[in-house]
Formats: sequence, C-alpha cells, structure tokens
Amino acid sequence: MLEDVMIAPSILSADIANLAADLDAISTADYVHVDVMDGHFVPNLTFGPNVVKAVKANTSVPADVHLMISNPDEMAAEYAKAGADIVSFHIEAATHAHRIVSAIHEAGAKAGIVINPATPVSSLEAIIDDLDLVLVMSVNPGFGGQKFIPNSLRKVSQVRALAREHGVSPIIEVDGGCSAANAAELIEAGATMLVAGSAVYGKVDRAAAIAEIREAGRAGIAKRA
Amino acid sequence: MLEDVMIAPSILSADIANLAADLDAISTADYVHVDVMDGHFVPNLTFGPNVVKAVKANTSVPADVHLMISNPDEMAAEYAKAGADIVSFHIEAATHAHRIVSAIHEAGAKAGIVINPATPVSSLEAIIDDLDLVLVMSVNPGFGGQKFIPNSLRKVSQVRALAREHGVSPIIEVDGGCSAANAAELIEAGATMLVAGSAVYGKVDRAAAIAEIREAGRAGIAKRA
Amino acid sequence: MLEDVMIAPSILSADIANLAADLDAISTADYVHVDVMDGHFVPNLTFGPNVVKAVKANTSVPADVHLMISNPDEMAAEYAKAGADIVSFHIEAATHAHRIVSAIHEAGAKAGIVINPATPVSSLEAIIDDLDLVLVMSVNPGFGGQKFIPNSLRKVSQVRALAREHGVSPIIEVDGGCSAANAAELIEAGATMLVAGSAVYGKVDRAAAIAEIREAGRAGIAKRA
Amino acid sequence: MLEDVMIAPSILSADIANLAADLDAISTADYVHVDVMDGHFVPNLTFGPNVVKAVKANTSVPADVHLMISNPDEMAAEYAKAGADIVSFHIEAATHAHRIVSAIHEAGAKAGIVINPATPVSSLEAIIDDLDLVLVMSVNPGFGGQKFIPNSLRKVSQVRALAREHGVSPIIEVDGGCSAANAAELIEAGATMLVAGSAVYGKVDRAAAIAEIREAGRAGIAKRA
Amino acid sequence: MLEDVMIAPSILSADIANLAADLDAISTADYVHVDVMDGHFVPNLTFGPNVVKAVKANTSVPADVHLMISNPDEMAAEYAKAGADIVSFHIEAATHAHRIVSAIHEAGAKAGIVINPATPVSSLEAIIDDLDLVLVMSVNPGFGGQKFIPNSLRKVSQVRALAREHGVSPIIEVDGGCSAANAAELIEAGATMLVAGSAVYGKVDRAAAIAEIREAGRAGIAKRA
Amino acid sequence: MLEDVMIAPSILSADIANLAADLDAISTADYVHVDVMDGHFVPNLTFGPNVVKAVKANTSVPADVHLMISNPDEMAAEYAKAGADIVSFHIEAATHAHRIVSAIHEAGAKAGIVINPATPVSSLEAIIDDLDLVLVMSVNPGFGGQKFIPNSLRKVSQVRALAREHGVSPIIEVDGGCSAANAAELIEAGATMLVAGSAVYGKVDRAAAIAEIREAGRAGIAKRA
Repeated sequence: MLEDVMIAPSILSADIANLAADLDAISTADYVHVDVMDGHFVPNLTFGPNVVKAVKANTSVPADVHLMISNPDEMAAEYAKAGADIVSFHIEAATHAHRIVSAIHEAGAKAGIVINPATPVSSLEAIIDDLDLVLVMSVNPGFGGQKFIPNSLRKVSQVRALAREHGVSPIIEVDGGCSAANAAELIEAGATMLVAGSAVYGKVDRAAAIAEIREAGRAGIAKRA
Repeated sequence: MLEDVMIAPSILSADIANLAADLDAISTADYVHVDVMDGHFVPNLTFGPNVVKAVKANTSVPADVHLMISNPDEMAAEYAKAGADIVSFHIEAATHAHRIVSAIHEAGAKAGIVINPATPVSSLEAIIDDLDLVLVMSVNPGFGGQKFIPNSLRKVSQVRALAREHGVSPIIEVDGGCSAANAAELIEAGATMLVAGSAVYGKVDRAAAIAEIREAGRAGIAKRA
Repeated sequence: MLEDVMIAPSILSADIANLAADLDAISTADYVHVDVMDGHFVPNLTFGPNVVKAVKANTSVPADVHLMISNPDEMAAEYAKAGADIVSFHIEAATHAHRIVSAIHEAGAKAGIVINPATPVSSLEAIIDDLDLVLVMSVNPGFGGQKFIPNSLRKVSQVRALAREHGVSPIIEVDGGCSAANAAELIEAGATMLVAGSAVYGKVDRAAAIAEIREAGRAGIAKRA
Repeated sequence: MLEDVMIAPSILSADIANLAADLDAISTADYVHVDVMDGHFVPNLTFGPNVVKAVKANTSVPADVHLMISNPDEMAAEYAKAGADIVSFHIEAATHAHRIVSAIHEAGAKAGIVINPATPVSSLEAIIDDLDLVLVMSVNPGFGGQKFIPNSLRKVSQVRALAREHGVSPIIEVDGGCSAANAAELIEAGATMLVAGSAVYGKVDRAAAIAEIREAGRAGIAKRA
Repeated sequence: MLEDVMIAPSILSADIANLAADLDAISTADYVHVDVMDGHFVPNLTFGPNVVKAVKANTSVPADVHLMISNPDEMAAEYAKAGADIVSFHIEAATHAHRIVSAIHEAGAKAGIVINPATPVSSLEAIIDDLDLVLVMSVNPGFGGQKFIPNSLRKVSQVRALAREHGVSPIIEVDGGCSAANAAELIEAGATMLVAGSAVYGKVDRAAAIAEIREAGRAGIAKRA
Repeated sequence: MLEDVMIAPSILSADIANLAADLDAISTADYVHVDVMDGHFVPNLTFGPNVVKAVKANTSVPADVHLMISNPDEMAAEYAKAGADIVSFHIEAATHAHRIVSAIHEAGAKAGIVINPATPVSSLEAIIDDLDLVLVMSVNPGFGGQKFIPNSLRKVSQVRALAREHGVSPIIEVDGGCSAANAAELIEAGATMLVAGSAVYGKVDRAAAIAEIREAGRAGIAKRA
C-alpha cells in the first residue's frame, strides 16, 4: 500500500494548559492540526504563531496549521516562519490566493487552501496546480464538536476529480465530524487525511483512537474508483 | 498600608506548552495578565477565550484579560463569560465603550479601558466613572520585550488626577517595560498594578522576581503627592 | 395544475406612511417582498426587523425578506426571529453561507440565497441542496424602477437545471423589472415566483395587477421544457 | 420667555404600519425624531431616506433625523436631500466631520453632531462653531426603552459651557430615557430639546404627554445658572 | 489580417517625472496601460484620475486603465470621467460588477474585468456578454518586474472559449511578464492585447521593442485553433 | 531672524506629465509638498511611493509627504523608505500613532501628524513630544482649490500653545487656502510652514509667488505673542 490514511488530531480539543503532555499522547499522529481563529473570520479566537512555535518545540509530529483568519494576504506567511509544516488558508478570505501560496512556499512550508461547506470546488480550478493540500470543511468552522455535513462527501470526490484532471495529487483533508464511523467512506471518496477532534480527545487512549480511525479509513482505499 | 502594589505577570512570556506549571510558579501574583491579540488590532495573534478558561481552571490567581482586538463591541463580553475577573479593551477600537463596559459588568467581570501611548487621557473623561481599571500602555501593544516609553509617567499621573477629580478610584495599571528599576516612580505617579513580562519570566525564581518588583514599587507609595 | 405562479409585490414601492392599508390592497399576493437595504451592500437604506414585524402584524400574506446587507453572517437570523417566513441573503456578502442558512432554519424560517446579475449560478452548486429559495436578480439591487437585464433568463434556466441535477426544487424567484409583459418567458425558463414593484403599485387596482401578472405567467408553465 | 422647551417624539416607538396616523397624533411636537440605524454602527436596522420622505409628506412637524450609521461621510447628505430639516451624525463614525456638516448645509438642512455616552464633550471643540445642534446620548444608541445614564447631565452642562465659550447657541438635544420626571433637571443643565419615546408613545393621549414633558421641562429654564 | 496583436506598455515602468516625453516614445503602441493601485487591494499605491488626465492630455494613444483598487463599486466611473478609453476592475474587489460595467459605459468608456492568477475563468460566465475586455493577470498584481505564471496560458484559452460560447469577442489582454519570448504562445492561446513593462521600458528604442513584441505575437495568430 | 517662514508648494497643482520641469520651477521652496491620497481616506487617489522617488531624483528641495490614506499603520514607513524627508499621517486614520511615528523615524525621516478641520488639538497631547511636525488642515483634504476655513487660525495658536507647554518646537504647517493674503496672520498665530497650491501654481513666475508668500508671512513673525 503506497498511500496510507493520515490522521491529524486537532489541538482545539486538547488541554491547552498542559499542551506538551497532550502532544506526547498523540505522537503516532501524522500531523497535529492547529486551529488558528481570529475572532473575525469566525466568531472565536484561539491560537497564533506562538502556539505553533510551542507545538514545534514539543513534538516531532509535523504541524498542519489551519488559518481561520480574515487577513491571510497579510498574515499567512508568519505561520510558515513560526515553523508550520503546512499552512492552509480559506479561499473565502483571500484576495491574492496565488501570492499567499507563493509566500508560504518561500517561507519553507507546504501550502493548502480550505473551502467552506457552501463554497464550490470549482473555486479551486485556477490554483489547484500550486497546492500541496486541499481542506474540505465538513462542518462550519469556528467551534469543535459539530455534526458532519453529509454532502461533504460529494465535494471530496469533486476535489479528487479536479486534481486528477490537472495531474496533481495534493493531500485531500477533511475537517469536521470525522471519526471511525465515517472514515471509510471519506477515504473512498478521495480524502487522504482526516482531522479528528473529539474522536481522539474524547477517548482515554488517544493512540488507540488514532489507530482505530486510521484502520477504519484503510477499508476505503480498496473501494476507491 | 491600605493599598498595596499589585503585580500581574503576562503569560505572553510564559511557556505556553506548559501553562499549568507556569501558572503555579506565579501563584504569588495578584493577577495573571492575559494578552489577547487578534492579528487585526495588532499584527500578532495570541490567545482567546479557551486560554482564559484554561487559566481559570489551573490557578486561583484572578485573570486580568487585556483585549488587543479590533471588535470589542462584539466580543468583549465573551471573555467575561469565559471566566475573566477583569476584561479591558482599547478605547481606540471601541465605538460604544459605555455599552461594552455594561456588557462586561452584566457578565460578572470588572471592566477596564486601555489607552495606547499616543491616546490622550482626556479620552476617558466621560467614561472613567464606570471603570474598575484604567490601563496605560507604556509600550506599543503587540509584542513582548519592548522598551518603556518615558512620557507614560505623565499619563499615569493624569489618570490619577482625572480619577480623583471624578471621585473614583479604579485600578491604574501600566503595561510595558515595567520592572523593579522603574516600579517606584510608576507607583509614585499613581499606578497601582504593574504588568511584568520578561521582568518575571526572565528570572528563574519567579516568586522572587514578583516580590522584588512589588517591594521596589512600595517605595513609591510613600512618595505620592 | 400542481404548481402555480407566485407573485410577491415589493413594499419598496408601497406608501410607507400607510403600510397597513397598502398591505390590505395586496392580500391576494403569495408573498410580500420586503426589501431590506443597509446603505453598505447597496447605496440605499430602507427597512429592518421592525418593519418585518409590522408586516406580520398587519397581513396574513407571508413575508419574503430580501436582505441587501453586507453582514448577513451576523444579522440574517434576526429577520427570521422578527417573523419572516423566508429570509434570503446575497451570496456576494456571505462568508459562511451554510451557517447562515442553518441559523435561519433554526429560527424557524425558510432560507434563500440571492445572486447579483454578474454572479454565476455555479456559485450555488455546493449549497443549493439546503435552500428553500433561489433569487435571481434581474436588475442591480438598491433602487426600484430599473430595467430588466435580458440575460437573466438564461440564469433562471441554469438555476432550474442545477436544482434538477441535485434533485431539489427550491422556489426560483426573479426580482427586477418583472411584469405581465415578460412573466410568461420567465416562468417558462423556470421561475416560480416573480417580484413585482411598479407593475403592481403603479396600478390603481392592485389585485387586478397581481392577477394579470399571474395569469400572464401561467402561459409559461405549459411551455416549460 | 424667548426660548421654550422643545419635544421631539421618536418614531422608533411609533406604529410603523400606520405612520401617517401616528404622525397626526404628535402634531404639537416641535420635531419628529427619526432614528436611522444601519445594522453596522448599531446592531439594529430601522429606516432610511424613504421614511424621511414619508414623514415630510405626512406632517408639517419638521424632521430631526438622527443617523446611527457607520458611513456618514458618504450618506449624510442623502437625508438632507430627502427633506430632513436637521441631520445629525455620530462623531464616532465620522472621518471628515467638517465636510459632512458642509454637505448637509449645502443640501439645505441644519447639521448636528451626536456624542455617545462614553465620548467626551471635548471632541466637539473644533467643530461646535459650525453646528446647529448637539445631541447628547443619554443611553447607548440602537434600541428604544433604555434607562437614562445619570452622568449625561454633566455632559449636557459641558456642552452648554463649550457653546457659550465659543459664542454659539446650537440646539442641545438629549436622547434616551427623557420624560416628565427628569425634564426639569435636563433643561436646567442646558438641554433645549428632549427626545421622547415611550414617554409619549406609551401614553394614549400623546398631545397630553408632549405637553406634560414640555411643562415639566419649563421648570428647569428658571433654574439655569 | 483583420485582427492584429495589440501592445499596451505599462507606465508603471515609465519615468514618472518626465511622463510626457515617455508617452511620446511609445506613440506606436495601441494603448497606454495605466496601473492604478490604492495601497489596499494591493500593497502599493501609484496613480489616480489626475494621471489619467495627464496621459490623455499628452498622447493620442488611448488609455487602458487597470484599477487595482478595493472599491471599484464607488470609484470606477471616476476614471472613465477622467478620460480613460477602457476602465478595467478586478472581479475579486467588486460587489456589483454589472452595475460598475454599466456606470463605466454610461461615462463613455469601454469596460473590462480583470481576474487574478487564482481566480477561475468561470467567475466571468454571467458578465462576459457585457464586457469589452477581459484582462488575465499572469503575475500577482502590485509590482512590476515579476515572472510570468505558466498556467496563465490555459486561462487565456478558457477566456477565449467562454467568449466564443457566448458569441462575444472582447479584447483578451494579458498582464505580467509578457515579452517577445512568449508573445506567440499567448496570442495563439487567444490573447489579443499584451501589456509590456520592462520588455518595452528596459529597451532604449521603445518603438522597436513594441514592434518586436507585436511581430513575435503575430506568429501566434496563424496557429490559433 | 532665527526662524524664517517656510513655503511648501503642493505638487497636486503641478503638471504631473512634466513633473521634473515643474520641480525645477519651485527650487526656491523649502519643501515640496506631496499629497498622497488613496481613494479611501479621501475620495480621490493621487500618488504613491514611486512619485516620492521621482521627486527625490529630480530636485534637491526636500520632500514633505502628506499621507491622506486610511492605513498609515501599515504603509507610512514605506514613504520614508522611498526617500521622503518628512512623512505626516492623519490622526483620524491611525490606531497606533506612536508606533507609526517610531517606524518613520527608524526609516530615517521626520514624522508629522495631520489634524482635520473638526479634530481638536487636544488629540495630540500625548504624542506631540515625539513629533517633528504638526499639520493643521485649513480645508477638508481631498481636492485642491478650496476655501480657507477661518477657525483654523485658532487651532494653529492652540498647537503652538500645546507645543510650548511641552517644551517642544515642531514645524507647524498649514494646508489649504494659504496665500500671501493670509500668510501674516497664519505666521502670527504660530505657523512656520505654509502649503501653497494655486497660490504658486496659478502664477507664471513661481519663484516670485513663493517669495511673495514668504515675504507676506514674515510680517507675522514680529507680531507673535
């Protein structure tokens, strides 16, 4: 199996007062998902570059930074400079998305774009060639613990089709309500990385929870068209 | 001595990956100063309500939340709801400052207003009666480790004079470059609470650092006009 | 005939000083179209939730509220709470369109999305499943009395095709320059509800005007592909 | 008695569905106070230029338009063109207040500036010479039915002192919680016009309510310093 | 040959202190490309209507004004009034693109829309019928001297296909890194006008440089599908 | 005479197509006043850093750059880097005025603050110590050729008084409607530098026009209190 299912636990659900310990508990994850919110793009404010630095200083798991900020044109590159391995920003908030992608690349990180539940996949058609990751929101961003929106599956497969049409293979990440229960169908649809919040942090044994979702997802690889 | 010098270490300088431990180390402080930045009012993004909750869950030292955000009209009360003991916002960012103060009070916290280095003290004259705290910035907000701006002393004494003229006695807090070296003159000018960043977190023994600044500040009480 | 042509007179053309009487005169309409403008999304300001309440208190015709406001993310649900039967917002002004639709639904109203003349129908492809109504602007929003933009017909048929492809059947509403003269071709293209301003309020007998447009439109149903 | 107490009932409390009738009921008022809100400066949206026109077409009482909008630089003059006799805007929302005042004057109306509860009277010192009216908010703008903020009295007397110092005599209007109970002290402090909402619309006999507040206010004229 | 290759040198690369002389040197160009930047849409500020007037007063070459401003809804028509022959604005910055196009037309100029490198061509599908020009950015706007983005070629051919599908033939302009080296493939893909910055202003003989790019481009016409 | 009257012709009135020549014609001026407008702070857009560079490359007269832009927090230092000798920004547009002043100083230029006609001089009381220049607008900014607002004289004297109270002596500049006719009273009130637009560019002999205003102004020095 050349490609495996990647799991990225979201530290939005972690114990922020004991982050180093919580990071240790997810050392088998593929990425740590860092939810950056600014209180403008979404009505919640969470972490910024200093938390990215803290993550990098306390785990060897790479950092997947999801910017829910309304000014990625100005600020996205700062997160790459803070050590993020991947920096993703919302297409709904960007004016010069190509320039932002270039700035993230120049700062040494991989670049991704996130699309909200109501945003069509076609909005990516002129930039997908330059992306290392596409993140499909399967809940509305801003808070943890929300319910998976069913038609996200169709969007995941549309992203996969668009990528194939362009001859590129970005990571296809899904964020919101992902768990062992729906991992197989998400992976089958084309997802390659799943963000897990309560599905990991709600369990005592987080390594087991990560393994369970990953294992469940693997069933979807075989079924892919 | 009825009134004592209060010290509020800023967690901007703390080890965010081990916040609980860092909070333990400053248990002798009067307040924990939480620097909330949104990447809009200032070009840096730090913490939001979830960190305020984490602070409240891990220390009995009350939380003094300093909002460096451009939308306090919408968001200030959220921080009181998250458990903050004091919520302060910038007058430069507020449209309806009286309404914000009322909303913070209704949510059960004390309310303060912060003024930037270039903002005149006279901007507070119609609202000081309603304030529990005035915070005079002695550096430009946004980043730690900056140099104290000397004419902040005059502004501290102007705040004290305005409060006296109105027959009120809010906490007068100073943030930026405060240390044992200038504590006495700040307290003499009228300050009653000093924010300390590197002056506390730069020392191994943080309790000693807090004690040293407080002790230095006490010398200023006697000299007050 | 299972489906009939619906007519929604716009109160933008009504006598606002005698609104109750004007509402009586259009009691045969299917909906009252309430044009909410905020002076930001469009350079005109009209009515808000209090007028929606007044409409609801004075007629049994359901209220179809069209939000021409630049902050539907914050304000759309207020109109549902004020009693609107349908609340529609512009896709050009929304950041989290799926969340707004959910909020309108939770507040008990039907939810619609409006597209400006230059906005492609493809912008709706990821959200049409959740909509009760799509409103195609056939003039630029902001003022009454403008001329119908001819290529709106093509957009109406594109909305119909998209809905069919998704297996959904939202109301397809057209706003701007609709009258008995073009009702048949609009209905034929797929429209199911027509907003009428001067075509109703410019006539003495408003019930007759409504009936005339509806009757003219019915001719289009038979011709539909 | 050269100067009398002026009363301006606010149509925010009127029956908007029967505005013409409600305007008839307050024909003894000095001004009709029109509360224009845009859903941006305040979290409520009410009326725009079309309602100003409707007021002008249905009463001979002059219209006192209070703009609670965040873009008076662009929009204030529109209200003068719509027929307003006085157009007032918030100093907190204005960038070029002198230009706005000039534009209102050029469009043929009197110009006023409104100050929020937390805004110091000193913010008017460079523009008071050009004003026909100063409006002191004694509640936070946005909704009717709020409680009078006591220190508004001091601000009214400060406006009076500033005007005298400059040798000018603008109308000094107070908005929020004004009634027969506090009219005398407001007039004594320097107010010359009181906005009345529920104090008028909450009574069956509105003319009597207006007369009562005016009479109560007259007691304050004699006591003025 | 009915249609020829058009060359529009950008005055961003000109000697602004001696603009009249620089305009003389490019009198063989088809258009003068005027780069209007406002320091908001892009982080650079260049010229406004006064420079458009100066261009018109000093050359008979028509002016092709490219607005890199964030408020085209308010300002685009000003440039037509200043004498521009073509006014183009960015779709990413427009709310009411159809209204802007109409306003430009009413002011007597041709109207164009510009799309950023990451913006899909499909964003034009509801407005292309009304356009005199489509400008495909082949670099990120804001500064001169950047490198051509290769997948711009595909976008040029997509614009051509969309125009044909709609039965219209707007000028298809390309801006960024155009030179004699890539002119043929751009023209072959469907471009009809090339903006040239350093490719013209970097040469001593500007007329020769213009002729060289035009000649190189002509090779592409024959190869068109 | 230790201090002399300084004259700064505004290039807003110059022939922008032949700027180098126009700069030669005012070589006896003390400063060249460069009016930077962004189409947001004011409804006009003029010049940016490239014109500042062009000015510096074509005259030895120092450049006095007046930023009428709404984002000086982000952009002011760029003008110092472009070679400006003085960079002034509007207090109405600044959030962190002290930081902007520091950034201008660090970039090697003198820093000034501009106040609009309605802005009180007291808004400068916490920052005047750090300023090299205060610019009092005596017209509303945005366009040339406007009439001098008479109460600007009082504001000039207030600036002078504030500066003396603080023991500092910034350049006190006046912009708008300055000419030989009012130069003496402006200088007497405390102005030290006058911006001249049509008063210089409306005359054939610009050196003579500059000399005339300067000479007229000198009469005011002797009369100063």
